[in-house]
Amino acid sequence: MDEFTLIETLIAPRAGQRDDVLLGIGDDGAIVRAPPGEDLVIVADTIVEAVHFPRNFPASEVGYRALAVNLSDVAAMGAEPRWATLGLTMPRSDPDWLRAFVGGLVAAGAAHGIQLVGGDTTRGPLTVTVQVVGTVPAGQALVRHGARPGDRVWVTGTLGDAAAGLTLAMRATGSPLSAGETFLRERFARPTPRVAVGQALRGVATSCIDISDGLVADLGHIARRSGCDAVVFAASLPLSDALRDLDDVYVAHELALTGGDDYELCFTVPMAAEATLRARLAALGERATCVGEIRTGPGTVTVLDAGGEPRAPARGGYRHF
Amino acid sequence: MDEFTLIETLIAPRAGQRDDVLLGIGDDGAIVRAPPGEDLVIVADTIVEAVHFPRNFPASEVGYRALAVNLSDVAAMGAEPRWATLGLTMPRSDPDWLRAFVGGLVAAGAAHGIQLVGGDTTRGPLTVTVQVVGTVPAGQALVRHGARPGDRVWVTGTLGDAAAGLTLAMRATGSPLSAGETFLRERFARPTPRVAVGQALRGVATSCIDISDGLVADLGHIARRSGCDAVVFAASLPLSDALRDLDDVYVAHELALTGGDDYELCFTVPMAAEATLRARLAALGERATCVGEIRTGPGTVTVLDAGGEPRAPARGGYRHF
Repeated sequence: MDEFTLIETLIAPRAGQRDDVLLGIGDDGAIVRAPPGEDLVIVADTIVEAVHFPRNFPASEVGYRALAVNLSDVAAMGAEPRWATLGLTMPRSDPDWLRAFVGGLVAAGAAHGIQLVGGDTTRGPLTVTVQVVGTVPAGQALVRHGARPGDRVWVTGTLGDAAAGLTLAMRATGSPLSAGETFLRERFARPTPRVAVGQALRGVATSCIDISDGLVADLGHIARRSGCDAVVFAASLPLSDALRDLDDVYVAHELALTGGDDYELCFTVPMAAEATLRARLAALGERATCVGEIRTGPGTVTVLDAGGEPRAPARGGYRHF
Repeated sequence: MDEFTLIETLIAPRAGQRDDVLLGIGDDGAIVRAPPGEDLVIVADTIVEAVHFPRNFPASEVGYRALAVNLSDVAAMGAEPRWATLGLTMPRSDPDWLRAFVGGLVAAGAAHGIQLVGGDTTRGPLTVTVQVVGTVPAGQALVRHGARPGDRVWVTGTLGDAAAGLTLAMRATGSPLSAGETFLRERFARPTPRVAVGQALRGVATSCIDISDGLVADLGHIARRSGCDAVVFAASLPLSDALRDLDDVYVAHELALTGGDDYELCFTVPMAAEATLRARLAALGERATCVGEIRTGPGTVTVLDAGGEPRAPARGGYRHF
């Protein structure tokens, strides 16, 4: 049995079969059918051992993460994720590892009804590329370039947790983690893609991005592409209790501003649409925090401290090279 | 400038912008629009250095190959390739390498009007995952499981060239290659995806697959999935002059039967549809050869020599693990 057939065997009993998949794993390609009147959103992300996650990271967390980071991209486009393909390169055939990996993948996709429809398994250094195709009603996808002066900047969840969690994930396993540390580590290992929030932002948000490289870096993409400046109020940053407990507030703010891997959404909303935003979030039981505003300017991001003074972040976000 | 922005910069002036791409590289995802009434075909393939191509293989040939093997999968489904994403993992930032890689990618896609709409560049061992989404009129995609007893087995082009070419590609570059050797090496380095033939097979072929792991192995997929046996007549195998010149006919047949990487199409056609097949191939200026037939049976493949005796292939096709 080749590796991909094994993956199919492991996944089949655990993931629902979508009605819109006419032919799944096992042919040269999958055949799927999108609803009439919907645009397609296509995303793809690669994670590499020792670059995006530590060596000997648990297989289930590698699988979870590989899909979750893509679902986060789909969320940032306001789309509904439907079909995924998987390019898995692994050093050797290891059914136990594969079983745990697939478990993580299924766990990440379960809440979203996504189906793995194809892919490829190859031998080589541990690298996972997942690609997801989703759909969105025609013309309603969220983009980075629509922010306008006067819009306010919002983020989902809390920020900085994953950056703190990565440090904990890399720590030698000698001492057990506290409840707060476990929370932070989970925030790195199993980020929550904000898929339902992304869809709820259609017609409300003027721009949206997911925070993978840190708030300042990712909001910077919105600012540059929209041709506006963005201002962030450090005192407004949503911080988890676990992050506050771990470190002083200056470090916590630093992690919230420049730490990567949170996979929360950052989006801009005109003041006139805020009531709608609040109502939709309340209906979902989800939370978002206003952390700044869009101003006229060439595309820069400024962080202001509690006294209104500019704060220069120590780092500009995560760079892959 | 990050690597993917560089890729976009390199590709933009050399690849046409498709009308059905509403938003390309540069956001969390691409937004595209499929024609009404068409199904989507999704394919994904990974190639890894030192596994699928030799170390220090020319960057342009890595780029060409990464896209071509996926276009071949789209061809085998009878679909029209439209949009591609790229997951590129490379050991270090190297603009010259990247320029040549993109040149190869553009060359492979140019004839098919495909557009790169997104992806991800990461640091790590050289691994390339490409995913392509194409479309096909609803219900008309080609599959592996439709072969029926009485159908005949056809292949495009010539077989075995790429297996011989791989050996030449791995040879030390001391001695220059003859014209025939150069032809064979090119057949490995720059396979021709039979995209137009695949589309012409809609409504004619009862099954189709592309030959990536060798004729016997890939026809075996058709046989097993269709629940029929397949017979191949070795004397009918289409061989290039270059392959005949390189080796004796027994070895040439062996390469044609079990050598991988040809990326020709293998398909089955009922006798009643052969006139239509010939007319469509002639209209395209393409060639296909009848190499066998489908018989009642449990799903095996038998190769018969010129005297009608069964021939046992030495190898069962390429295995990734």
